[in-house]
Amino acid sequence: MTNWVTNAWYVAAWDSEVDVAPLSRTICGTPVVLYRKLDRSVVAMRDACPHRLLPLSMGIREGDSIRCKYHGLKLGPDGVAEEMPMKSEAVNRRICAETFVVAERHRFVWIWVGEKDKADPALIPDLWPCSSEGWTFDGGYYPVACDYRLMIDNLMDLTHETYVHSSSIGQVEILEAPIETRVEGERVFVTRWMAGIDAPPFWRAALGKEGPVDRWQICQFMLPASVMIDVGVAPVEAGSTLEAHDQGARGMVIDFMTPETETSHHYFWGMARNFMIHDPGFTARFKAGQGAVFAEDKVILEAQQDAINRNPGLKLSAYRIDEGGVRSRQVIKRKIAASAKVEEPV
Amino acid sequence: MTNWVTNAWYVAAWDSEVDVAPLSRTICGTPVVLYRKLDRSVVAMRDACPHRLLPLSMGIREGDSIRCKYHGLKLGPDGVAEEMPMKSEAVNRRICAETFVVAERHRFVWIWVGEKDKADPALIPDLWPCSSEGWTFDGGYYPVACDYRLMIDNLMDLTHETYVHSSSIGQVEILEAPIETRVEGERVFVTRWMAGIDAPPFWRAALGKEGPVDRWQICQFMLPASVMIDVGVAPVEAGSTLEAHDQGARGMVIDFMTPETETSHHYFWGMARNFMIHDPGFTARFKAGQGAVFAEDKVILEAQQDAINRNPGLKLSAYRIDEGGVRSRQVIKRKIAASAKVEEPV
Amino acid sequence: MTNWVTNAWYVAAWDSEVDVAPLSRTICGTPVVLYRKLDRSVVAMRDACPHRLLPLSMGIREGDSIRCKYHGLKLGPDGVAEEMPMKSEAVNRRICAETFVVAERHRFVWIWVGEKDKADPALIPDLWPCSSEGWTFDGGYYPVACDYRLMIDNLMDLTHETYVHSSSIGQVEILEAPIETRVEGERVFVTRWMAGIDAPPFWRAALGKEGPVDRWQICQFMLPASVMIDVGVAPVEAGSTLEAHDQGARGMVIDFMTPETETSHHYFWGMARNFMIHDPGFTARFKAGQGAVFAEDKVILEAQQDAINRNPGLKLSAYRIDEGGVRSRQVIKRKIAASAKVEEPV
Repeated sequence: MTNWVTNAWYVAAWDSEVDVAPLSRTICGTPVVLYRKLDRSVVAMRDACPHRLLPLSMGIREGDSIRCKYHGLKLGPDGVAEEMPMKSEAVNRRICAETFVVAERHRFVWIWVGEKDKADPALIPDLWPCSSEGWTFDGGYYPVACDYRLMIDNLMDLTHETYVHSSSIGQVEILEAPIETRVEGERVFVTRWMAGIDAPPFWRAALGKEGPVDRWQICQFMLPASVMIDVGVAPVEAGSTLEAHDQGARGMVIDFMTPETETSHHYFWGMARNFMIHDPGFTARFKAGQGAVFAEDKVILEAQQDAINRNPGLKLSAYRIDEGGVRSRQVIKRKIAASAKVEEPV
Repeated sequence: MTNWVTNAWYVAAWDSEVDVAPLSRTICGTPVVLYRKLDRSVVAMRDACPHRLLPLSMGIREGDSIRCKYHGLKLGPDGVAEEMPMKSEAVNRRICAETFVVAERHRFVWIWVGEKDKADPALIPDLWPCSSEGWTFDGGYYPVACDYRLMIDNLMDLTHETYVHSSSIGQVEILEAPIETRVEGERVFVTRWMAGIDAPPFWRAALGKEGPVDRWQICQFMLPASVMIDVGVAPVEAGSTLEAHDQGARGMVIDFMTPETETSHHYFWGMARNFMIHDPGFTARFKAGQGAVFAEDKVILEAQQDAINRNPGLKLSAYRIDEGGVRSRQVIKRKIAASAKVEEPV
Repeated sequence: MTNWVTNAWYVAAWDSEVDVAPLSRTICGTPVVLYRKLDRSVVAMRDACPHRLLPLSMGIREGDSIRCKYHGLKLGPDGVAEEMPMKSEAVNRRICAETFVVAERHRFVWIWVGEKDKADPALIPDLWPCSSEGWTFDGGYYPVACDYRLMIDNLMDLTHETYVHSSSIGQVEILEAPIETRVEGERVFVTRWMAGIDAPPFWRAALGKEGPVDRWQICQFMLPASVMIDVGVAPVEAGSTLEAHDQGARGMVIDFMTPETETSHHYFWGMARNFMIHDPGFTARFKAGQGAVFAEDKVILEAQQDAINRNPGLKLSAYRIDEGGVRSRQVIKRKIAASAKVEEPV
């Protein structure tokens, strides 16, 4: 029993991280090697040669195939043996490395490490702002030494910004806006709507317009492990609502937490926006700023994981601010339990 | 079952180590945060926020309270919640961090991590030379990666000085003086009395007087984990006895070994003396010298712990010189066993 | 149950590694201290003082004895106590450190960590080229963080040279020569015989003669953990055979893999040769070259061990090229099983 959903799409890498040279990354406890074929499509195999288990990521790329660095077993992109270590030996095509279904969407390489026949690309989380007309998207990759769910808790609560990010984005005022948490099927929303306020400098510049604004922060958890945070402002006269608020400056913070082990994960962070989309300077500055903010979270989250390990008798508590995280964890837990039930013999 | 007595006072820190800023230290396997209130009294809590377990030692001090760095839960010095992460939320005063009883005595901050109702300050080991008129006391703190009992063994036997400290305080002559070990209730004494000898240079200077002296070394183990070593010389004409030997130059080496884990401890070392008490230069030189001597012990003790781990089939042996350590361990063992018996259902 | 044969001779060290100063090395899971007596014979004891377990390798050498650095227990070269920590205490000659049978042969110090009465020096593997007239022998010591059997696999297959050593000794041509594997009792041979070929530059120089040659590579596994590789060339007119090929330039690569733990070993590598035996420059260059080649193997073998650990569900496969390693492992396994059977009660 793991603490993650197995039959699901996870982000394995940014599309730009995967190229001809093999990339090694452990996804949901499974060592995986990723590389691109000549046609640029992505291959994912277990990162262990079926012969003597040497990581294939240490191997030599040849055409669309990969050759193990130890004895030269050559595997095709389907994982099947194409050449034995001793060239004179007849190829045994039952020799193969486990392969994984992959897909590219929203600037990410997605992987399905569960049962292959269930890997429906339609199940890839809809991170639409990452690949929509009129939007631009970029971000970074950060390994974090904590249970991926601690990061979900962190993102589904905006309160911590006041203390963790006191020197950067934290504002005491934000604590005073009421939040609302709701569950819609397998999605969880935490919403903070600030009507008719003065826009802070960042958003004033993004909007490029004076006057009172409606401001929002809407965190959305989606299975198996993403949080999309819809942030922005619109002029009051636009009459924005929770359901429709497209007439202002709007950003989408994209967070994907792929489990590596039970106590570590790969954190993919990005920001999509519908303003200044042709200004790469904005993007660069924003990424640098986020790097500093993220470093603050990383210190907290890794210390939290460490404290969990050192206080085995204690459990995490949940207060009102944690409702988003609690609900998200419930959605995950139900999904894991449902999957376990299906696998049981009748 | 631990290898230490739980219902007992342990030294958590030198008084000067604890101040307004939080100090984190694991005592008997329990992560603890220590800090001083405005009135300078000491607070000790479990070093984990009751909310999401982030170490409170990473938190922000506010008045006598501490605020968690993650979501801002504010706890009073009694560990009870004073402010929720979201200020608008009503305070739930059932939320609290475990607190520990502390006391200050003999220049140390003492802590009781066992059952609170048994924490009687009268049980604090009587390290009287650390806080008596006519004496001065100072020392240092050293973390050591070995079972605290190995340090007790070390201190209750003065033989090792010849080999471990051959370059510093070791003397072959000392091996020739007879030693006597005796148990008095829960105390163990190892005594070496050298009557009518020539004082070595250190003690000659301390005494400030020519002529033959009586010299003594009396190691005293006290529960749960201290060793006090009474050392000194007195002119023969003073007629000193084992029971009364106050008319010369006398020092008390104070050692307290607080378990951190089963295989590491916090070593508090100090020297109290009744001579040159207004000479801070003496104290400074003595501390520096002890640093060098202690470094020699640390190498030995950590190598010993490592050898114990790597030779699981072997047991420590005990010869005559080890009687002091053996008796001390028996006192500890009996105390642990007695405590276990009490806890059993009738 | 270990993955090595216990009742067997293992190389503990190069003869030049052991001297008056104690050397600590863990052999088959047992910490051992080695030193030479005044007559240059070698002593091996468990590296833990029978008193308080401090490694004896930290001790002080006195004559043929060793004195523990902690309390000064002095042990003779037979491991038996000669002096107690307190000199006045009568020596208890039942106090002793476990000793191990050692022997010196073929430039190595051999140790037997199993049942003493079975330690017959006639069982020392016959590495004759290391100590024969007309030959010279030298080599090095390398610790490797992998199961010693992975190194045996590596050596009993010469295929990997093409890929692992592509930048140094690898040649694609070598893959094309047929190999033959055969078992003779407890020995395993992997043979590659290349008749009437052009000698490569290295061997041409060694032979010092033009014309077609017969070339051979014969790997021989011997219990408990050695591989000797007979390599060389001889003029075709010498009429060399697999059984007799002494009329050319011949080298013997000597490999001994002594288990340290289940996942690490001590690798002793050497090269004996019957050519240019008075040219120390050749030896020095050869050792330096081997250092670079070995560094390539070490990277592979340690990555392989790591991959084995990280893919617990996968097993090593064996193809035709692995037959030598497979057979060698079978010989080891049978020896371990036979030994276990003997130990069972009837």
